[in-house]
Amino acid sequence: MLEISEIFNAAAVLKDVARKTAIIPAPKLRPGTDIYLKTENLQLTGSFKLRGAYYKISQLTDEEKARGVIACSAGNHAQGVALGATHSGIRSLICLPAGAPISKIEATKGYGAEVCLVPGVYDDAYAHALELQKEHGYAFVHPFDDPKVIAGQGTIGLEILDQMPEVEAVIVPIGGGGLISGVAFAIKTLRPDVKVYGVQSSGAPSMAESLKEGKLCHLNDVSTIADGIAVKEPGVNTFDMCNRYVDEVVTVTDDEIAAAILALIEQQKIVAEGAGAVAVAAAMFGKLPIDGKKTVCLVSGGNIDVNTLSRVITRGLNKSGRNYTFIIDLPDKPGQLSGVCSTVGESGGNIISVSHERINTSTAISGCTIRVELETRDKAHIDELRRALQDKGYNVLN
Amino acid sequence: MLEISEIFNAAAVLKDVARKTAIIPAPKLRPGTDIYLKTENLQLTGSFKLRGAYYKISQLTDEEKARGVIACSAGNHAQGVALGATHSGIRSLICLPAGAPISKIEATKGYGAEVCLVPGVYDDAYAHALELQKEHGYAFVHPFDDPKVIAGQGTIGLEILDQMPEVEAVIVPIGGGGLISGVAFAIKTLRPDVKVYGVQSSGAPSMAESLKEGKLCHLNDVSTIADGIAVKEPGVNTFDMCNRYVDEVVTVTDDEIAAAILALIEQQKIVAEGAGAVAVAAAMFGKLPIDGKKTVCLVSGGNIDVNTLSRVITRGLNKSGRNYTFIIDLPDKPGQLSGVCSTVGESGGNIISVSHERINTSTAISGCTIRVELETRDKAHIDELRRALQDKGYNVLN
Repeated sequence: MLEISEIFNAAAVLKDVARKTAIIPAPKLRPGTDIYLKTENLQLTGSFKLRGAYYKISQLTDEEKARGVIACSAGNHAQGVALGATHSGIRSLICLPAGAPISKIEATKGYGAEVCLVPGVYDDAYAHALELQKEHGYAFVHPFDDPKVIAGQGTIGLEILDQMPEVEAVIVPIGGGGLISGVAFAIKTLRPDVKVYGVQSSGAPSMAESLKEGKLCHLNDVSTIADGIAVKEPGVNTFDMCNRYVDEVVTVTDDEIAAAILALIEQQKIVAEGAGAVAVAAAMFGKLPIDGKKTVCLVSGGNIDVNTLSRVITRGLNKSGRNYTFIIDLPDKPGQLSGVCSTVGESGGNIISVSHERINTSTAISGCTIRVELETRDKAHIDELRRALQDKGYNVLN
Repeated sequence: MLEISEIFNAAAVLKDVARKTAIIPAPKLRPGTDIYLKTENLQLTGSFKLRGAYYKISQLTDEEKARGVIACSAGNHAQGVALGATHSGIRSLICLPAGAPISKIEATKGYGAEVCLVPGVYDDAYAHALELQKEHGYAFVHPFDDPKVIAGQGTIGLEILDQMPEVEAVIVPIGGGGLISGVAFAIKTLRPDVKVYGVQSSGAPSMAESLKEGKLCHLNDVSTIADGIAVKEPGVNTFDMCNRYVDEVVTVTDDEIAAAILALIEQQKIVAEGAGAVAVAAAMFGKLPIDGKKTVCLVSGGNIDVNTLSRVITRGLNKSGRNYTFIIDLPDKPGQLSGVCSTVGESGGNIISVSHERINTSTAISGCTIRVELETRDKAHIDELRRALQDKGYNVLN
């Protein structure tokens, strides 16, 4: 059973290791709300995971430390354990599935871990890590279901109360539940008047389902852009703590998460990964009763793959009318393409790409189709461009 | 002549208005360096400009305040003046060129300014602002060449010395020179041992040229992705202060700026605009003698257009091998495209787009060309994919 004194102890241990990340106001995320962001994406290693891993390692016996630690993760936990072990001057071995992104493997090595690539998926890597642990007697650092790890994550709760004593609600992402267990325990023990809400991805709602069913649920498939919280089953400890200390758990969709990532970039100038943005998504899309309440959304991490980020931005640009592709049916005679391009240019559209196809079953035998991809200012600008093209007699299909 | 007491006064005035933005370590930007970031991109309005504008406004007489202020800007200065005036409870009128991005116009209105759209470019808007000022007696808030504005920006220098007394060098972006004049004056007055370096874009090196020539230089054309520092001529005051207080001014290219923006996203999880990233670019690309020195790079703003950000990311992905387009010459018979797609898929390439062209002067009369755009892991992965395609007998042109 976790005691509040252990979280204070973790805070003392972490004092010179983890950054006390800033809380910044986010006044424009949703009208009528009073939202602040606890920026754990600006934590060392780009996520909160260092806290729990380092504290867990600090509490090992000298004998355990001498043997080193092992963990299994393709993500933030790997980097947290690696840096935590290196800071403590001990060895760490991280098992990763062989297909893990090169960038994550390199980052984990960069923090001083040895990396063991295991053929297969996460479950294979996990099984192999357990084998190695038994064989060599390494200490296993669980990503969430360990009271020491939970105590380390709970230091974020203490920091929030210290940095913003007037806080009324805190919104926290949930994967396996280690982060919210620590934060909710700390806050509810010290300030039971403060609401603590949890958020999962609708593509991986294992804790939400478990709380609803009143028992641990196992999901066979999870699928979400928030890969950091794509967990099939909560922990035994974390399920129990969420049951006791969390006021409500809601889910958000991938589209809502993508919109939150884009809003954080545009309005707050910070980068969140999918898992890191779910609390903000829940606040933005009105999933929780926080209107008028001073609310802290925990932005838990920022380690988003740049390819994914690029897709999120492109989708956001399309949705907000800042990117559009016109498809136009043209008679196949000289000068048509240049006419379209000049019309678009005169109306302030900036051409990104053009394709001109003569072979297309949907066009007349003597016709052709062109696709023009443009940067546009907004949806009204797209309408203006469409009217300009139609006024010149072009047959705009899209 | 500016006195250090005025900068302390500005700090007192700004205490409850501007955020004291965090300084965060950036250990991986360049091996062998000890770099920190002063995150003014996380300032209210997304840039440092609020500081100078608000302090300038606070020093107006009651009579001047009653008439209101006017400014001309298509960017961060507009938002700084708007919020500064609104906080002070006075009227602001901002002249913008009519073609300014909708997002900037809306942001400026959102901070409470009246907006006057002037047909033409920046110079036309500026001329119109001066006319309106004369006609109505508004106080003009210059974007950089005003001692009060400079004093407001100088508060960043005080904060750096307070937050990191062991600092040895500070790198600051230069457009018109208001920011660096204030920061350099504060730092050199209080701690002459600390180096202060300035950075401009090589596409708009007006201060660098002026310092080299020993007199104010006017550039006829400026062109850079760092639009916030695309200034044709430094100010009289700022030129004089840079001459006295700045140790060295260097320039960085657009490619270097883009790489710095991407590095800040990937490694630091923060979003900088082009102008905001030039100090980091200078540090990353070894333009200044900072190896082994505790160095603060000032990230001055984060208001980057998302279309521009998308282009910067795409270019970065290409450069680092995480995106590649193969061009393959094929005999024009059934099954070829599916063969290419399955080969690519087996090797872990993720297809973004495919185009298949039969009409192409470079191919045999019975052949065709396909272009396959892929997400890839890195340059080694691209080579692996190329070999897999060649092993199956495909003629890979690119």
